[in-house]
Amino acid sequence: MGIHRFFTSMNDLERIIRCPGKFKFEEHNVAAHSWKVSQYAMFFATIEENSGEVVNWKSLYEKTINHDFAEVFIGDIKTPVKHASPELKQMISHVEEKMMEKFILEEIPVEFQPVFFERMKEGKDATIEGRLLEFADKLDQFYESFAELKRGNTDPEFVYMYQEALTKLLKLPLKASVSYFRDVMLEDVKREKTALDVKAFTQKVLTAKTP
Amino acid sequence: MGIHRFFTSMNDLERIIRCPGKFKFEEHNVAAHSWKVSQYAMFFATIEENSGEVVNWKSLYEKTINHDFAEVFIGDIKTPVKHASPELKQMISHVEEKMMEKFILEEIPVEFQPVFFERMKEGKDATIEGRLLEFADKLDQFYESFAELKRGNTDPEFVYMYQEALTKLLKLPLKASVSYFRDVMLEDVKREKTALDVKAFTQKVLTAKTP
Amino acid sequence: MGIHRFFTSMNDLERIIRCPGKFKFEEHNVAAHSWKVSQYAMFFATIEENSGEVVNWKSLYEKTINHDFAEVFIGDIKTPVKHASPELKQMISHVEEKMMEKFILEEIPVEFQPVFFERMKEGKDATIEGRLLEFADKLDQFYESFAELKRGNTDPEFVYMYQEALTKLLKLPLKASVSYFRDVMLEDVKREKTALDVKAFTQKVLTAKTP
Amino acid sequence: MGIHRFFTSMNDLERIIRCPGKFKFEEHNVAAHSWKVSQYAMFFATIEENSGEVVNWKSLYEKTINHDFAEVFIGDIKTPVKHASPELKQMISHVEEKMMEKFILEEIPVEFQPVFFERMKEGKDATIEGRLLEFADKLDQFYESFAELKRGNTDPEFVYMYQEALTKLLKLPLKASVSYFRDVMLEDVKREKTALDVKAFTQKVLTAKTP
Amino acid sequence: MGIHRFFTSMNDLERIIRCPGKFKFEEHNVAAHSWKVSQYAMFFATIEENSGEVVNWKSLYEKTINHDFAEVFIGDIKTPVKHASPELKQMISHVEEKMMEKFILEEIPVEFQPVFFERMKEGKDATIEGRLLEFADKLDQFYESFAELKRGNTDPEFVYMYQEALTKLLKLPLKASVSYFRDVMLEDVKREKTALDVKAFTQKVLTAKTP
Amino acid sequence: MGIHRFFTSMNDLERIIRCPGKFKFEEHNVAAHSWKVSQYAMFFATIEENSGEVVNWKSLYEKTINHDFAEVFIGDIKTPVKHASPELKQMISHVEEKMMEKFILEEIPVEFQPVFFERMKEGKDATIEGRLLEFADKLDQFYESFAELKRGNTDPEFVYMYQEALTKLLKLPLKASVSYFRDVMLEDVKREKTALDVKAFTQKVLTAKTP
Repeated sequence: MGIHRFFTSMNDLERIIRCPGKFKFEEHNVAAHSWKVSQYAMFFATIEENSGEVVNWKSLYEKTINHDFAEVFIGDIKTPVKHASPELKQMISHVEEKMMEKFILEEIPVEFQPVFFERMKEGKDATIEGRLLEFADKLDQFYESFAELKRGNTDPEFVYMYQEALTKLLKLPLKASVSYFRDVMLEDVKREKTALDVKAFTQKVLTAKTP
Repeated sequence: MGIHRFFTSMNDLERIIRCPGKFKFEEHNVAAHSWKVSQYAMFFATIEENSGEVVNWKSLYEKTINHDFAEVFIGDIKTPVKHASPELKQMISHVEEKMMEKFILEEIPVEFQPVFFERMKEGKDATIEGRLLEFADKLDQFYESFAELKRGNTDPEFVYMYQEALTKLLKLPLKASVSYFRDVMLEDVKREKTALDVKAFTQKVLTAKTP
Repeated sequence: MGIHRFFTSMNDLERIIRCPGKFKFEEHNVAAHSWKVSQYAMFFATIEENSGEVVNWKSLYEKTINHDFAEVFIGDIKTPVKHASPELKQMISHVEEKMMEKFILEEIPVEFQPVFFERMKEGKDATIEGRLLEFADKLDQFYESFAELKRGNTDPEFVYMYQEALTKLLKLPLKASVSYFRDVMLEDVKREKTALDVKAFTQKVLTAKTP
Repeated sequence: MGIHRFFTSMNDLERIIRCPGKFKFEEHNVAAHSWKVSQYAMFFATIEENSGEVVNWKSLYEKTINHDFAEVFIGDIKTPVKHASPELKQMISHVEEKMMEKFILEEIPVEFQPVFFERMKEGKDATIEGRLLEFADKLDQFYESFAELKRGNTDPEFVYMYQEALTKLLKLPLKASVSYFRDVMLEDVKREKTALDVKAFTQKVLTAKTP
Repeated sequence: MGIHRFFTSMNDLERIIRCPGKFKFEEHNVAAHSWKVSQYAMFFATIEENSGEVVNWKSLYEKTINHDFAEVFIGDIKTPVKHASPELKQMISHVEEKMMEKFILEEIPVEFQPVFFERMKEGKDATIEGRLLEFADKLDQFYESFAELKRGNTDPEFVYMYQEALTKLLKLPLKASVSYFRDVMLEDVKREKTALDVKAFTQKVLTAKTP
Repeated sequence: MGIHRFFTSMNDLERIIRCPGKFKFEEHNVAAHSWKVSQYAMFFATIEENSGEVVNWKSLYEKTINHDFAEVFIGDIKTPVKHASPELKQMISHVEEKMMEKFILEEIPVEFQPVFFERMKEGKDATIEGRLLEFADKLDQFYESFAELKRGNTDPEFVYMYQEALTKLLKLPLKASVSYFRDVMLEDVKREKTALDVKAFTQKVLTAKTP
């Protein structure tokens, strides 16, 4: 059909729940997640610019709002699947890619197909925008799991998600952003009143990371 | 851990929604679906027994209640993915199988592993119990899409799901069951007051099937 | 009408919430509950078979999937009602029975009425299948209340439900199943991280039970 | 305990869904229903006063806000049960009464017990306040079923509920209220754009009622 | 149109959630809240009557069930807005008033307009009924925040709401009601098992209030 | 506190429902809406670029993702309020502005305050990015109301919202975008199977607009 079909399919992402199957005090859909990622990315891109980096804002905008569109085809495949083995993870990525290709060729008008192929490809590359996307995506995993722990969700999965996100955030090659996150934001995080001892989970990662 | 871990993972299937992403007037979870499948299967097994077939009830019981357990790992991958290409469908099945294998080896006590490998394998084989499972599973797709059409859901996906389920039900090699479904149940279905013209969708399939 | 009417009424059980009126972090419907009961029963029937008992699998299948069908007429009458007095409990059972009788005579085709009367009668009898049904039903009450306590639900009703289920489970005349539950599963339960002190609630019952 | 226990039990009525088990586009809880009933009753009491009747406002207030409190014990027993047979209906009423009595004796401080026994007894008596309560309660059934039909709910139960409520409303011994409802409000109802032909269902009752 | 339009607009209040935007373990709608307020008010009016005060029950009935009707136009504007500055609070009240006026003039039949203007005006005046309304409204804020704290909601907003409600309740000029609340009900509240230390929050207010 | 506080407040927008109080078959939160707006804007900015316009992508990115952030303070004030009178609309805008100012001064670190004042100000100005924001925001109103009409929501409010959005979209000073919307997308819209006659509603606006 055309762009009308693309626009109505966006509505489907409001019904795809992140981390399906796990008990959560609050659910998040992929559309709202994408918005939060685009907000985090804008803030940290400002930090990077202030520290002298050059940011391509159009690219950052494209990467953040489109990074999970492929979930419209395959849902939010649960993290354990993605990480069960590198081979399975690759298979899942391959399926997503094929579905996206099929969708663009069938639904997007020919004149826009090149733009869509460009925008819908994997955004987490080595450019500064790619790294900012990865940072922002991990930050939302950090905040989603933090909120569950704060409210007392005892499922060990969320401790794992929290610590994994934190570990990755601290290691990403974005010097100014990582500093700001670690030195300013984490201090506020540690000051919050929480049901589970999030401060201890945080400290463990902070201590572990310096070898 | 052990069986305790298996039992608590069953709770996850209460949070896996069938046909995720699509707009529906009513959502169904995989646990409730499994129960309905086991009910349909028991009824049609009775029909088959009455017509002279021999049913292994233990096998039917095992097949029906376990047939979607693998969705605990991978969710209800949307039908379009499963059918986009035979290659993609096979990949998805392979991922599911690998996840199940990993789960049994890691979580199920050694003495029960053979039983679980047997019970969790693909149940839709050529035995009468395998065919009854397939019939019952399709019948739930039939009823779920029927309910959406009846309430006025105009998404063409549900017309497609309804007609696909109906077509397959009429072709399954279960003579007595198919007759009962077609000659008795479909008559009641066609008499129901519905928002969309389900009777017409039904008639179309009934007419098409005789070449 | 006929079986079509019976099948669509099954959908109603997806909307009957267990333990209505009480605050819960997670709700469970009667359809999903029935599936979980049929899973527990299959596992413990395997345990009993391994210890030398003879299990009628068809009967167990029938009993588990049908044991709460009557709630379609009367809902999940809250436990306090059921146990307020033996007289009130009996009245409620009588209402349920009458409604079921009426339903079978009005909706089920004559040729299937004997089968339905057999399948829909109270399943918790003295047979091994009846005892397995009772065990499995109590086990789901155990797991539902455990999950609430684990997540920090302070309503005393759930402590009561947990301890009552545990007490009954330990007393049921199913030697191999009770041993496995007590000696293997409860150990895993006690090792879980929980918001309320479930280990203490458990220990209290374990200690109390030996006179 | 005391009044604190009574006040927190009111919260339970926010979780008791009316007409449980049936598919509805919108659910209503018993607390919100009670508020709507107290609103309708106040309006029609004003109509009656204007036509010369004497209304005891304190009694009307008490009757409307308390009329469904007993559902806290037993839920909203589905209409079919209530009406299956006069004998079953009476049994259910008896159970409710016994539960209420038990609650008042156990939870309400002695000095308030007489007030609670008075307020919690069946309110639909022959007084004008009792008749206004019945009118208001039926009017909410009328509006709830009207809303479902208006949105296209094809379940015949709602046509039945709509027509039954309408029939009873037109027959209640409240001359001014019935006139206003029939001559003014029903005209507005019939002018609404609806998915199903509510106007026809309405006309049928209006025509039938005059012998 | 007329009263039919007023009655259907009441349904909108079942969809207006109190304290929107904040994370809550349980949501409450404005319709159910209004019912709870009318229940609290009736109880404390009885207390006041018993202590010799004269209560106008019709006025109390009118005030309690109508006190939040204006939220149908403007929603439950979040408390922070209302209290950000007296000027902003006044603006919001002004908007609500104007909307109500417009609604009455456009939707309510001329003969009922005086009654509606009277019933829909701000009810929290200096009469005993006005003070009982204020007491009952605060008591629901007390119970809503208490329930969140009891279940472990760590959002500081709810500690603030709880303490603010408690402070105001203790100061209202309703001698018998305040005594009963403080001396009888608060004792029961403090005895409850809670996830957060509600007893300490309560004690803090009780100690602070005596200068 | 700081940016941590800003980031956690974003979560609140996932709980603010658009068009609160009205019956809808599907609800949309403000976070997901913001994402959809940023998607529409990117597409039409591409259209404008292709037709020779110069787009400031950073500005468009900022405008779209921030345009409804102020609803975190005041919720989605219902459209009727906004349009009841120009005076009331202005008052509401003033309240929002004051709340935003207060939030930035209290929560955002001093070094980022100028950036936040710039980003959070009203984005719908006369620049091409401001017009694209307005176009995208109206387009989401168009799609939200279209989806309700398509599924059979008979509330006249949604016909009004649909026609008002359509009228405004066709008049916005964005030549290439309006052409594409009218000549390509609307054709697809009119071809969809819908429960209500959306084609007629559309045609009416299309005909009306050419004087």
